[in-house]
Amino acid sequence: MAGPADVDQITIDRLPVHRDDARGAVTPVEISRFEPFQQARLFYAFDVPENGVRGRHANRTGREYLICQKGRVRLDLADRRKERSVTLSEGDGVLIEPGIFVVDTYLASGTVVLVLCDKPYDPADYIHTLAELRAD
Amino acid sequence: MAGPADVDQITIDRLPVHRDDARGAVTPVEISRFEPFQQARLFYAFDVPENGVRGRHANRTGREYLICQKGRVRLDLADRRKERSVTLSEGDGVLIEPGIFVVDTYLASGTVVLVLCDKPYDPADYIHTLAELRAD
Repeated sequence: MAGPADVDQITIDRLPVHRDDARGAVTPVEISRFEPFQQARLFYAFDVPENGVRGRHANRTGREYLICQKGRVRLDLADRRKERSVTLSEGDGVLIEPGIFVVDTYLASGTVVLVLCDKPYDPADYIHTLAELRAD
Repeated sequence: MAGPADVDQITIDRLPVHRDDARGAVTPVEISRFEPFQQARLFYAFDVPENGVRGRHANRTGREYLICQKGRVRLDLADRRKERSVTLSEGDGVLIEPGIFVVDTYLASGTVVLVLCDKPYDPADYIHTLAELRAD
């Protein structure tokens, strides 16, 4: 994404889900096919109570690719000037650029969210309030 | 793992699960901390019926790191001479070296398994029967 982070430039990717009655479903994630993204680590969140909230941060330099593996999660997104909300359902993925503040609300119990990160963990890369992002 | 693939050398890693009543659970996976593993792609399987079976293959050269994100999965493992079964519960991870034949039985509905692979997808890397593995 060229220029400053812009919530209006965020698009949701519909990942493939290969289903079979006997064997269930599988989703391959070959992120390099649709984004220039070098993954350094990953984490996943689960067992979040319905309407439980995670996230609440922006990254200064790190990019994150969020995948809703199960359930439904709403992302309340903000850049330096605007806000926007998107809801991810099963099989939806979204790239979050640096400078986008994200609050994740888990809409359904059993929701599992996988997050791929392109930088090693660094607490100094996190911006924990929207005020700080907008004052930067 | 030096030498030929050996089911007896397989160990289960207990991944960290950070839990919080309000925010649920998160598991960071920084595989490079405990294995020399370069991830090329990933996939995840879900909505598998109870006692449904996936897998049934060995890789010729690719390594896979399986993580049981939710539920429980039994891995029936075989090398060229021996068999062994292990069961993964939530938060368990296991490295599968090339030459290990794996049959995954999903023991609980709602089980979600994440698989990290160190090679791009290549159908020619798959061995689909134990007979073929042992004849190799």
